[in-house]
Amino acid sequence: MSNVELVAVGTELLLGQLVDTNTAYVAATLAENGIDCYASHAVGDNRERIANLVREILERADGLISTGGLGPTVDDLTKEAVADAFGLELVLDSAALAEIEGFFASIGQTMRENNRKQAFLPQGSLPLVNPHGTAPGFIAFRADGKFAACMPGVPREMKPMLAERLLPWLRSHFAVREGIVTRILHTVNIGESEIDHRIADLFTSSENPKIAVLAHDYRCDVKIMAKAASTESALVSIAPLETELRSRLHGHVFGIDATTLEGAVLAALDERAERLAVAESCTGGRVAAALTAVPGASRRFLGGVVAYDNAVKLAQLGVPEETLARFGAVSEECALAMARGVRDRLGAEIGIATTGIAGPEGGSAEKPVGTLCVAFVGPRGERAWTLQLRGDRAAIQSRATTAALGLLWREVKIS
Amino acid sequence: MSNVELVAVGTELLLGQLVDTNTAYVAATLAENGIDCYASHAVGDNRERIANLVREILERADGLISTGGLGPTVDDLTKEAVADAFGLELVLDSAALAEIEGFFASIGQTMRENNRKQAFLPQGSLPLVNPHGTAPGFIAFRADGKFAACMPGVPREMKPMLAERLLPWLRSHFAVREGIVTRILHTVNIGESEIDHRIADLFTSSENPKIAVLAHDYRCDVKIMAKAASTESALVSIAPLETELRSRLHGHVFGIDATTLEGAVLAALDERAERLAVAESCTGGRVAAALTAVPGASRRFLGGVVAYDNAVKLAQLGVPEETLARFGAVSEECALAMARGVRDRLGAEIGIATTGIAGPEGGSAEKPVGTLCVAFVGPRGERAWTLQLRGDRAAIQSRATTAALGLLWREVKIS
Repeated sequence: MSNVELVAVGTELLLGQLVDTNTAYVAATLAENGIDCYASHAVGDNRERIANLVREILERADGLISTGGLGPTVDDLTKEAVADAFGLELVLDSAALAEIEGFFASIGQTMRENNRKQAFLPQGSLPLVNPHGTAPGFIAFRADGKFAACMPGVPREMKPMLAERLLPWLRSHFAVREGIVTRILHTVNIGESEIDHRIADLFTSSENPKIAVLAHDYRCDVKIMAKAASTESALVSIAPLETELRSRLHGHVFGIDATTLEGAVLAALDERAERLAVAESCTGGRVAAALTAVPGASRRFLGGVVAYDNAVKLAQLGVPEETLARFGAVSEECALAMARGVRDRLGAEIGIATTGIAGPEGGSAEKPVGTLCVAFVGPRGERAWTLQLRGDRAAIQSRATTAALGLLWREVKIS
Repeated sequence: MSNVELVAVGTELLLGQLVDTNTAYVAATLAENGIDCYASHAVGDNRERIANLVREILERADGLISTGGLGPTVDDLTKEAVADAFGLELVLDSAALAEIEGFFASIGQTMRENNRKQAFLPQGSLPLVNPHGTAPGFIAFRADGKFAACMPGVPREMKPMLAERLLPWLRSHFAVREGIVTRILHTVNIGESEIDHRIADLFTSSENPKIAVLAHDYRCDVKIMAKAASTESALVSIAPLETELRSRLHGHVFGIDATTLEGAVLAALDERAERLAVAESCTGGRVAAALTAVPGASRRFLGGVVAYDNAVKLAQLGVPEETLARFGAVSEECALAMARGVRDRLGAEIGIATTGIAGPEGGSAEKPVGTLCVAFVGPRGERAWTLQLRGDRAAIQSRATTAALGLLWREVKIS
């Protein structure tokens, strides 16, 4: 059936100066649309080598999709190479020219002469509009009907071109009727093996829709994939499985699809109409940074204290000296005192605190590197937890942030 | 001369479930060692397709380097495919077997039967030791002397194998005498075009060593690359150019090579024996998070206040109500008051503060989205700056963090 290969064009890829993320993005889109892709390639800005690669690929595949090499400079040679490989002339495409002129007009600049070059396309090509830049994409056709679909390499130009222009053409060209729809349930405070244990029977009983579990730093995604003739019918086939998964993972699913943990925390605070203050020691500002990444966070997030030094815990959060002396800075008692302090001093309804040992130094037999204490204080009570996290300093700081946000979400949303 | 191509093996790469970072890493290593690489490829876990790709590549290239597909499962087929392509049998390599047994012994586990499979290599191969896992790499040879060097796909296993085993072999095989040594000067508070302007003549006058400028979010790297027969002589050839660049970019070069901006800030604080406190509004904890990423940050970083809500600026930082009323929260006056407040209340020598508009809401004609005020107060005086940053919320928050750290570094290090 359908079978395409991918090409990323750019010498910088073969010098290792840039990691190619376009290939994974295009490949994922093809997979979701049931279009097979058996190989991908990267090649430098060399007309002959690009042309040879195009010829080779089309001995196997029905078509190829390229990214990169469509800019206005002499280094940009994808178009010339495809024309060479297909034995076509480059001709001025008046629609493409009008589009480039329009783009420059829209940003209030005069078109430069080298941008005219971008309006030349292999004869008989289908232009692909680029509303986000000057490089139009195109689909060029070989005499036998095999094709080369060429897009710019800048991701913010390539992605909309793929979604809005190329993909509809590909689906029609390959008569794709099915699509794969995915639904992701995001969970927190539950490990991959516990999830496996709770839902093992659903794995084996279900081929379409199908389930996969992906573990991240201290949270897991449960992915449901359904093949169906339409998005609507795929969503219908997903629904009962989603309900069953939600019931088995009750108290852990903080959101679906594009929901983030910090977004779910702020939404839960919105529901309760409660405001939050954070006191951070080992997470060093990461809980606050995560929350403030969400637009409009100021509605529920008042601020916080990064109490890295013990003197700051005493003076700015009112942690009693006795608590530090008796239990140490990394203790549930200290975390609770920090959470109470930040809540009271900032005038929030809810306070959360983290204190722990991120390493590499500072661990002991009793409290090894990775020890994390989290405390929550709110109108419905207080709680504290001690966790043991793995990894290097960066991993522990990241996991501690996720763990604290996850515990906070559960307390606000469910308790 | 030398000419290799790269292959990344794994169906997950062609489903877009994983971005391939190995290719860029291996390519960069080859480039630094003057070994040409004209193409890279990704292929799924399919024995026939891998074997075909190996044959095709060796029609052009002297050898190939693959990553992935060496694990113990039935999906791992790189070895079988290379043996097919070269017409070789897989034979038990006793050294490889001993190594795998040793690995399991070292982690206190018994070797499973499927790990025995990993000790079979194409006949006549050179094994590549893997001290970090169970999959030994190898270099297999075709009758005509062309080779396939195969490494595991897990980056933490691949990278040391490349550096310690494969690269020395490649340099010897291709009789590479030259190496490329790079020296990166990291700059901050100076734009790419200003750097270009100051060093344009050095670009044209120098082919070896050669200069490149790479712009990042609100900081730039100036890269010097020198080809020479040895690392020592390359470093000698770099030295005068580095001195010239440092003099032209005086006050902006915060470090070289692996130095980070937050590391440079903490080192500058160490030199002065001064301690820091931060007050953050629009950066929402990111300045504190960056600094606490550095092990031992607690020596110089006391903590901070995330003053997201204006009430927190008033109560926790002592910003005068009149300052907020007269100049607004996004003003140099407010930033200065925040910096003074956090320094005094936390008992630090130095205070730094950020306040700005990260967007997407909250901008005005006078203070558009992207407006950032930064203030510094220290034993040698006070300063404040207003900057205009571009991008979406995430970009503005990231650039604001870099800008604040850059200004802080300059004040502590140079003023």
